[in-house]
Amino acid sequence: MIALDAHGADGGLQVIAEGARRAGVPVRVYGPAGAAELGRLDVVDAPTAIGNDEEPVRAVRSREDTSIVRAARAVAAGEADGLVSAGSTGAALAASVLHVKRIRGVHRPAVAVLLPVPGRDILLLDAGANNEVRPEHLVQFAYMGSAFMEAVRGVDRPKVGLLSNGEEAGKGTPDVKEAHERLAAADSSSLNFAGNVEGSDLTGGELDVVVTDGFTGNVALKAIEGTSKAVVRAIREAVTSSPVSSVGGLLIRGRVGRLREEIDPNTVGGAILLGLRGVAVIAHGGSTPDGIANAVRLAQRAHDERMIERTQRALEAAGVLRSAPTGSFDSQ
Amino acid sequence: MIALDAHGADGGLQVIAEGARRAGVPVRVYGPAGAAELGRLDVVDAPTAIGNDEEPVRAVRSREDTSIVRAARAVAAGEADGLVSAGSTGAALAASVLHVKRIRGVHRPAVAVLLPVPGRDILLLDAGANNEVRPEHLVQFAYMGSAFMEAVRGVDRPKVGLLSNGEEAGKGTPDVKEAHERLAAADSSSLNFAGNVEGSDLTGGELDVVVTDGFTGNVALKAIEGTSKAVVRAIREAVTSSPVSSVGGLLIRGRVGRLREEIDPNTVGGAILLGLRGVAVIAHGGSTPDGIANAVRLAQRAHDERMIERTQRALEAAGVLRSAPTGSFDSQ
Repeated sequence: MIALDAHGADGGLQVIAEGARRAGVPVRVYGPAGAAELGRLDVVDAPTAIGNDEEPVRAVRSREDTSIVRAARAVAAGEADGLVSAGSTGAALAASVLHVKRIRGVHRPAVAVLLPVPGRDILLLDAGANNEVRPEHLVQFAYMGSAFMEAVRGVDRPKVGLLSNGEEAGKGTPDVKEAHERLAAADSSSLNFAGNVEGSDLTGGELDVVVTDGFTGNVALKAIEGTSKAVVRAIREAVTSSPVSSVGGLLIRGRVGRLREEIDPNTVGGAILLGLRGVAVIAHGGSTPDGIANAVRLAQRAHDERMIERTQRALEAAGVLRSAPTGSFDSQ
Repeated sequence: MIALDAHGADGGLQVIAEGARRAGVPVRVYGPAGAAELGRLDVVDAPTAIGNDEEPVRAVRSREDTSIVRAARAVAAGEADGLVSAGSTGAALAASVLHVKRIRGVHRPAVAVLLPVPGRDILLLDAGANNEVRPEHLVQFAYMGSAFMEAVRGVDRPKVGLLSNGEEAGKGTPDVKEAHERLAAADSSSLNFAGNVEGSDLTGGELDVVVTDGFTGNVALKAIEGTSKAVVRAIREAVTSSPVSSVGGLLIRGRVGRLREEIDPNTVGGAILLGLRGVAVIAHGGSTPDGIANAVRLAQRAHDERMIERTQRALEAAGVLRSAPTGSFDSQ
């Protein structure tokens, strides 16, 4: 069963309720029990939400009755197989770290996103949890991303690249160079490391996982989303701008529609938090009901394919877990 | 007259020679005087080049006879109005800093690029000169980019954004936050600062200049180029995959061709180095003859519109030049 946060979707409760109905897997909704939209669903009463403008850690600590905190606690208690929220990313992250908790020895959780580009799936992480990362964080991200692609997307020996401003090993910031050295030294049976990759490789179709810090990852993700939309929009405008090309446009509409679906973030479902002891998926605020349903299915699949255990095992086998106990919430 | 480096284009001397002929402005080519391709052009004999695999600063210092060093010296001596090179970016940057030199008080030159996206022109800087920057560098970049858009593209009060992972002032790395504070405090008559912007704003058509560090800028630029190409390719494949949509594809070909030209880096001509005492344009290694010709025209235009003087005046008026003398080559 997936714990679904009723709050945060731009489309309101209606989108969440319809998404829950379409998901095809058991869902418990955390939201206002009396709301008519949620009528026939399994609802836990959690009428308040954490907004995008609140300081997430403080809000999560002080407001135990919010929907995201209750959903996270359900995952922590083993009552739910995972959580899905279309609300504040910061709140979902804070609630997950505080209640679901990190895998022992993981420095930082990462936000991982399947890029909305045509062709082969590429997982980008970190896409926004950590503005600044140390080399050891990037190394853990490589194993976390690889484990996700193996477990959830069925990719055999995922090819992992380290994002930099050049393909040569010596390119990048000092932290990227050090991460490169460590990853290049990894046992190739545990990590299929492809070396440094560039921004153009995010859409090149040769990689399965690309690792970077959360600042660069967030900028790259949004640049890719924005460019996809701008180019598709420009083509649509070009096509409808003359009678002849309008006829052409009608003839290609079906095919281009399928492409637009492929580059629509709703198709993927959302970002997944990696490095935690439970499954947490963050859906787009602008999700459609199908977007919510896809996010719920992604969370259920991550649970069913034992993503957490496989991630933990991969990190352990590689010897990249830190030895000091975790569990505290150090500066995000 | 523009000094054009004959070396470095993937297409060889032929592309450079044809580009020089098409440019429509006086060009002097720095390359092997005996080469048949350069036959009827004004050629200064400089038969050797600095490769992409050489350490740029060392190579520029030790090899005075290379084409890029001779071109940079011609600009420094006032013999040429600017230089264009399709060779190693590092070598062009090092030769420019050592010979053309920085504007007095500029911390670091930046690589600025007009993004190959549909619609309104956006200048992104730094796109690769400086992996790590301090807040005072970002502040100078804002004025340098603004002066370029005013002088060379005729934009009135260019709207300048600071790239971050969220629009709120508190978002970003500590350096980005500090740069935001300083830019927000700037006199709005000298800088039209739009605040923090996100990766999606790079293609959103609302801005004229976006400022960031060279690592993030390089990743974003290449992600945008890669996504444009991937989406256009996917549409072409979708269109040619059935007889009906193929007919549609024929009908829209003219309009989509114009769009493809708009997102082709050759249309822009190249990246321009800002913060120097002379004009330097770096063309794509993969430039076509028209790409080279556009780069030459861009360089000539920057000179004719007195970009350098206007940049210097803007930086001075804003009080953001550093007081210590420059001219030395500190760590790039």
